[in-house]
Amino acid sequence: MFDKLREECAVMGVFGHPEAANMVYLGLYALQHRGQESSGIVSSDGKVLVSHRQMGLVADIFKEEVIKRLEGASAIGHNRYSTSGQSHIKNAQPFVVEYVQGPIAISHNGNLVNAGVLRDELEASGSIFQSTSDTEVIIHLIATSRETTLMGRIVEALSRARGAYSLLFLTLDRMIAARDPMGFRPLVLGEFKSGRTRGFVVASETCALDLIEAQYLREVEPGEIITFGPKGMESLKPFPPAPHAKCIFEYIYFARPDSNLYGRNVYLVRKELGRQLARENGVEADLVTPVPDSGVPAAIGYAEESGLPLEFGLIRNHYVGRTFIEPQESIRHFGVKIKLNAQREVLEGKRVVVVDDSIVRGTTSRKIVRMLRDAGAKKVHMRISSPPTTGPCYYGIDTPTRSELIASASSVEEIRKFIDADSLCYLSHEGMYGFLDGRTQGFCDACFSGNYPVHFDDEGHTRQLHLFDATQQR
Amino acid sequence: MFDKLREECAVMGVFGHPEAANMVYLGLYALQHRGQESSGIVSSDGKVLVSHRQMGLVADIFKEEVIKRLEGASAIGHNRYSTSGQSHIKNAQPFVVEYVQGPIAISHNGNLVNAGVLRDELEASGSIFQSTSDTEVIIHLIATSRETTLMGRIVEALSRARGAYSLLFLTLDRMIAARDPMGFRPLVLGEFKSGRTRGFVVASETCALDLIEAQYLREVEPGEIITFGPKGMESLKPFPPAPHAKCIFEYIYFARPDSNLYGRNVYLVRKELGRQLARENGVEADLVTPVPDSGVPAAIGYAEESGLPLEFGLIRNHYVGRTFIEPQESIRHFGVKIKLNAQREVLEGKRVVVVDDSIVRGTTSRKIVRMLRDAGAKKVHMRISSPPTTGPCYYGIDTPTRSELIASASSVEEIRKFIDADSLCYLSHEGMYGFLDGRTQGFCDACFSGNYPVHFDDEGHTRQLHLFDATQQR
Amino acid sequence: MFDKLREECAVMGVFGHPEAANMVYLGLYALQHRGQESSGIVSSDGKVLVSHRQMGLVADIFKEEVIKRLEGASAIGHNRYSTSGQSHIKNAQPFVVEYVQGPIAISHNGNLVNAGVLRDELEASGSIFQSTSDTEVIIHLIATSRETTLMGRIVEALSRARGAYSLLFLTLDRMIAARDPMGFRPLVLGEFKSGRTRGFVVASETCALDLIEAQYLREVEPGEIITFGPKGMESLKPFPPAPHAKCIFEYIYFARPDSNLYGRNVYLVRKELGRQLARENGVEADLVTPVPDSGVPAAIGYAEESGLPLEFGLIRNHYVGRTFIEPQESIRHFGVKIKLNAQREVLEGKRVVVVDDSIVRGTTSRKIVRMLRDAGAKKVHMRISSPPTTGPCYYGIDTPTRSELIASASSVEEIRKFIDADSLCYLSHEGMYGFLDGRTQGFCDACFSGNYPVHFDDEGHTRQLHLFDATQQR
Amino acid sequence: MFDKLREECAVMGVFGHPEAANMVYLGLYALQHRGQESSGIVSSDGKVLVSHRQMGLVADIFKEEVIKRLEGASAIGHNRYSTSGQSHIKNAQPFVVEYVQGPIAISHNGNLVNAGVLRDELEASGSIFQSTSDTEVIIHLIATSRETTLMGRIVEALSRARGAYSLLFLTLDRMIAARDPMGFRPLVLGEFKSGRTRGFVVASETCALDLIEAQYLREVEPGEIITFGPKGMESLKPFPPAPHAKCIFEYIYFARPDSNLYGRNVYLVRKELGRQLARENGVEADLVTPVPDSGVPAAIGYAEESGLPLEFGLIRNHYVGRTFIEPQESIRHFGVKIKLNAQREVLEGKRVVVVDDSIVRGTTSRKIVRMLRDAGAKKVHMRISSPPTTGPCYYGIDTPTRSELIASASSVEEIRKFIDADSLCYLSHEGMYGFLDGRTQGFCDACFSGNYPVHFDDEGHTRQLHLFDATQQR
Repeated sequence: MFDKLREECAVMGVFGHPEAANMVYLGLYALQHRGQESSGIVSSDGKVLVSHRQMGLVADIFKEEVIKRLEGASAIGHNRYSTSGQSHIKNAQPFVVEYVQGPIAISHNGNLVNAGVLRDELEASGSIFQSTSDTEVIIHLIATSRETTLMGRIVEALSRARGAYSLLFLTLDRMIAARDPMGFRPLVLGEFKSGRTRGFVVASETCALDLIEAQYLREVEPGEIITFGPKGMESLKPFPPAPHAKCIFEYIYFARPDSNLYGRNVYLVRKELGRQLARENGVEADLVTPVPDSGVPAAIGYAEESGLPLEFGLIRNHYVGRTFIEPQESIRHFGVKIKLNAQREVLEGKRVVVVDDSIVRGTTSRKIVRMLRDAGAKKVHMRISSPPTTGPCYYGIDTPTRSELIASASSVEEIRKFIDADSLCYLSHEGMYGFLDGRTQGFCDACFSGNYPVHFDDEGHTRQLHLFDATQQR
Repeated sequence: MFDKLREECAVMGVFGHPEAANMVYLGLYALQHRGQESSGIVSSDGKVLVSHRQMGLVADIFKEEVIKRLEGASAIGHNRYSTSGQSHIKNAQPFVVEYVQGPIAISHNGNLVNAGVLRDELEASGSIFQSTSDTEVIIHLIATSRETTLMGRIVEALSRARGAYSLLFLTLDRMIAARDPMGFRPLVLGEFKSGRTRGFVVASETCALDLIEAQYLREVEPGEIITFGPKGMESLKPFPPAPHAKCIFEYIYFARPDSNLYGRNVYLVRKELGRQLARENGVEADLVTPVPDSGVPAAIGYAEESGLPLEFGLIRNHYVGRTFIEPQESIRHFGVKIKLNAQREVLEGKRVVVVDDSIVRGTTSRKIVRMLRDAGAKKVHMRISSPPTTGPCYYGIDTPTRSELIASASSVEEIRKFIDADSLCYLSHEGMYGFLDGRTQGFCDACFSGNYPVHFDDEGHTRQLHLFDATQQR
Repeated sequence: MFDKLREECAVMGVFGHPEAANMVYLGLYALQHRGQESSGIVSSDGKVLVSHRQMGLVADIFKEEVIKRLEGASAIGHNRYSTSGQSHIKNAQPFVVEYVQGPIAISHNGNLVNAGVLRDELEASGSIFQSTSDTEVIIHLIATSRETTLMGRIVEALSRARGAYSLLFLTLDRMIAARDPMGFRPLVLGEFKSGRTRGFVVASETCALDLIEAQYLREVEPGEIITFGPKGMESLKPFPPAPHAKCIFEYIYFARPDSNLYGRNVYLVRKELGRQLARENGVEADLVTPVPDSGVPAAIGYAEESGLPLEFGLIRNHYVGRTFIEPQESIRHFGVKIKLNAQREVLEGKRVVVVDDSIVRGTTSRKIVRMLRDAGAKKVHMRISSPPTTGPCYYGIDTPTRSELIASASSVEEIRKFIDADSLCYLSHEGMYGFLDGRTQGFCDACFSGNYPVHFDDEGHTRQLHLFDATQQR
Repeated sequence: MFDKLREECAVMGVFGHPEAANMVYLGLYALQHRGQESSGIVSSDGKVLVSHRQMGLVADIFKEEVIKRLEGASAIGHNRYSTSGQSHIKNAQPFVVEYVQGPIAISHNGNLVNAGVLRDELEASGSIFQSTSDTEVIIHLIATSRETTLMGRIVEALSRARGAYSLLFLTLDRMIAARDPMGFRPLVLGEFKSGRTRGFVVASETCALDLIEAQYLREVEPGEIITFGPKGMESLKPFPPAPHAKCIFEYIYFARPDSNLYGRNVYLVRKELGRQLARENGVEADLVTPVPDSGVPAAIGYAEESGLPLEFGLIRNHYVGRTFIEPQESIRHFGVKIKLNAQREVLEGKRVVVVDDSIVRGTTSRKIVRMLRDAGAKKVHMRISSPPTTGPCYYGIDTPTRSELIASASSVEEIRKFIDADSLCYLSHEGMYGFLDGRTQGFCDACFSGNYPVHFDDEGHTRQLHLFDATQQR
């Protein structure tokens, strides 16, 4: 699944480092895979919040002169995903405003299931909006709270918000991290020594800590709110405990393989998923080939378990552009071919097991199967290192609607026919938890199982924005 | 006074024209002299408000493809002035938001004297702010109003606002124009026939109507709110009548000479000011030369009245850039010289009357006098077609602080010494009203007289914004 | 004549100043009126020639960081005019190459009449070309010369070139200025003291000297080649003397009014042309109004001589953009109206003398006459401060072709009918020389008289370039 | 070896396709790995050559509107590599000029060893230069040739050029491909059917043919010149036969793994190099890990041959930026860490064989070894799938100078100490040819062996350019 059908966001914050913005920048760079549309950093020098947000990739945005302007010992940042039609600088985060207690910035990864309802209420009492983002809703809840302390306001605001949120706030003198009580989206805590002082870092994934050489401490726990301030770090758990619902799909596809997620190394989990896939769905074949890059770890596991040789029968072009003009005399599998090339010398006459992490619409898999056949593969056995994706995500991953998900209405055999594979096997639901020794508690697998841990309130409340900022972005 | 020491903004709106945005664009172009920092247009196609705002000049921003996106039969626009340090796209107008009744856009020329107080109140009840602009205050007042109709909300909001405002609002189906009860800033109403239908235009000055061939109808009256909607035009005067305080300085310097302001042609008024100046302050001399461009009409009047020949002894370079690097071996009068060149062949050995519209800090006048002397002028008599500028403007013109105004603390003789002229004369206060047959009612001349019609409430409430958006603007 | 129908180029060079590039920059800024398409500077620090060329206006191109890179004590620059279709960075000057004697840069104002012939010869012996510019031809002539010294090469090259050239060359240690033997295009020499050393400046017009406070010495004489080098300034006149043919049209329209050209102040010459025009073509009227800006000095002269009052009945918008989208319901005189606005209050019921410098196609004049009538003028008498323009220029001014020049095939009465004026009068040929006390020798007035001083060899040799660089310019 | 220490260029041409430029664009995209600095395409519509060249990546440059302007049925393109200091649009290819026979464009991959000598000769006879590129030398040789036909001129020009060249020329009606007699750089020929007509494609690598679905025909042979014109394809071999010297390093590192080079699949060759490396240099270990991406195929081969498990202990961030600001409190291995992250969970306590394709300076390998140790590796055995790189390339690959190559002066044991590995083994020279069954004829392995097939003439003739175009590139 190399097309960008499922994406979310990254958050990153540093407190107590003389080069806080540079650290956040490096963290955002390490988290680039979680969002490529826009990026932003807000820093505090104690007197003013300075922000820089821009469309584009992290490494293109944060040049030396930009970083220099982001002074101060604390900073938070954000990478945003890219979805068509909504790409705009207005949606870039961190979001920054002034309210009665002064300036505040916010970075958000997740999705509120009652954002529409809350927005209706807020507008009814006089709030104005410039976007449809959940983030703007959260800020308004904080600004309109009757509580007198910032923490009181945040607690009141989040007690009204339902759904998924991994949040970072920045004020002139504090950084605050918060994660929803079910813990949908990941959020980790680290520390570093800078000279004599101890500083802290909070990020979506551990790979961001690795790059800046912070020590991983632990996850920000579901329902926890941590304040980093002049007196150090304080933890609060103001909400009633709730069953955990950590996103299993982060393991399958989303997280970077070198991150440690919920206590385990993602690369090793994916290898194990591949091993389990081989155990469940062995087939006589000549070689195993991954759909790069996301299918590589599972393919290694599959190859090891099955004893079949691993080959790279599909080669990826890493210089990917956004759009290509398809020639009029159409090139077969054009959309896939600009990213992948199938190697005849490797595949010709071979029975091939091709391993991918998931199937979304099925159209990409169909093109891949045909490419493999065109390159001479005698048999094509598609193996998927997760169960069929039957439902959308309401908790912060940007997925197609249910009707676009091929597995929502088609049987595995129907999908096999559609993608024209000789065989198609998914990992079983139980198998997916095999690496956890069968323990299945504490995860959200709604996109596979339909068991949605939190009801989506906004059906009927989802409003289309009647504003369109046509300002050209360069 | 050719340096940009006093600037304000322009508003322009069109209702009922198939190419509304193009008309607004042309109007903004005609009003470019009122603001060169940024420009924006918001149009309504009945379903969505589409906006485009950008730093730069009107003719550089609104290319064909931009105008095409701004569909619909109604549109409002705005030119913003340029002041150092605050130049940013965030301040570009029209400002557009969604509130409980849907989307709304606003363009504002003027300045509220109680914006800080109102903002404190609004924040206390939960409003959030992204800028220090008055416009954001007005929008919040509308959004938090308890009135049920938009007109009710606008009336309530404006009844709390004190100071100067010439406003345009745009919703999906209506355009609304409003002018404060004292009428500080100009605002004119015109109409045009587009096919069978009658359309309307509201603009800061009549020169915008001329370019798009709209017929001038009248001023939007002080205290008047006009709604343009499906049923045509409706006028409302919800506020108690107040003495008028129309800005006299628009006549002296700000308005375009080909505009008709408060019922009179600006060019002819300026010529008359020059004539009166000659009557009051004649001097034996060989020629009259204007400081171009703003001093030209008054110089013509002065020359006519005095019988002295008019010459262009100072030539202006119209390709003006923002910044120049002054060479280390300093060039004399560098700041002025990049804009003006004094002509030795015209000036040598001559007794010169040089006519300007006003003196702000005195430094520019000083450089001009020296340039004229360096070019051989035997005598330099400076004549100013307005009284000494002794106080700042709180009603929408961006002036230096009182302490920077040379006339606030120096006598005319002290100023003369400073600028090193052989003589210096200002127009008398009475003389300034000579063209009105001595009628002095209905104008604000606070910057000359110190008679401020509305008290400035915000002393002590003016808050510095603690946000700084460092995103580079190209 | 405010539309850009006739433009040429500017050259500027400084030798012996620690901030040579900054000086050239200021000079180019003062010469912006001679070319607005592109601008460039090449400096020498003695070891390498550093160049910067870009599309756009001088003040937009040469930011501080750009100037800083252009190190060295000598520099030459160039402004290029704008003509449709050929606008491209490839044509931007100065042109810089390496040949057998090292690096050399060249700035050129003028036009060779035998460039096509020379190019054919050069190509036949192996030269390659990237443009159709004369400049590339001159450089090839120098590079392929058999002479051993640079001066020998330049003399040989220029002895083969026929037509108009005001040239500046820059090598690592020398600057060289050259003007063709007939002196078509202006070129002036100045000096300045920089600390203890004496430096030199060469520019198209004296206004460039004024801005940088250089002292005017004299014209670079027709046929003169001046070398500025370690040993100071050396003058050479290697060509046989030729009758002078200095461009009279520089006086009429092209030069900046504050420049001194061929020994006279341009503004005063234009005033005198206006006076003579009044003497020759008086008419009963109520006022005189210029077509701004180029018609202003002649209008002042006309008003003075005729005793009629001068008024600005047409107001110009100085914020001129390149293109405007004309609304579908066409605005009358759209093309002119975006630049000029006619003032009813000044013109209504008046008999108006409108003064312009020349008429090219007649379409602009026609629109102006109609605008004046629409604004209420009872009579419109058009007066032109030069004779009818009957032929194109082959010597460096970019004019329309003969067939586009209305006066090439129409009588004055026919033109009057076309522009719909009540009367139309041109200055007589003799009258044009009146300010010279009737002396008519030494000038090129071919565009008025058809007396072309040098035959245009390239008919039949003019080749269209078969290369088109479509690289987008921003 | 993932840092860009060795790069070259790509050429691509299409003849006889209605969307020739779009095809070339796709081919350049597939060849992006051979050059990321700039890219260009020139197309011919039979009347004019249209060009577009720009700094940046292929997919960012060739937007739809750009491709549309590149009309015609034939086109050639070029990707240029990036080297510091010389990055400039002036060096972007294809190079386009007009000479006596009309317009011609050229794309070049390779390096002439006598370019300096030839340039001296050309300048002596009057040629001018704007760059130091070999391409400009070739064009001048063609333009100054006394031959009357284009083919005669090309043959004469290339007979004087010594060294490496894979060339494409485009004129109004022909495309010409040429490869030097020793065949240093690859160049392949393909065909496609477009409707009824047969078209041709020439490219640096076969992966470009795959993407546009052209059929691979054969290599353009060393010494061959192929003309594609109205009469189809004609082949010429005008030069005396020479021993072949095809670049072996294309197999080791440079070519894309899915290309077929000199008749073999690159990926399979690299796997075989890894197998041979394992046979020659086995070691007791727990796992094999590649330095991604270039070391992956060899690591797979090594793992297969050795029976050790393959793991991805180093994870690469594919969103690579050009520059990063290193924090003041230095991050260990910063330069490598922004690209690679070592996985503790995979590596801890393990004896690790790390496979890379080559070592250039040794600094990167040293950082990698330390990263592996920091992540817990007990032993680190570095294995290189090529012999020690002891000399620079003079034939078109941009390598460091000899003194920068660590293997030029250090023994393997010294290098091992420098990079601090427990063991370090290179592939043997014979082993490198193992996949060819020991046949070692026909390749250039000068960078490993010091056997330079063509003497580098330019020592002493290499001239520094005395021009520097400082125009800022965006």
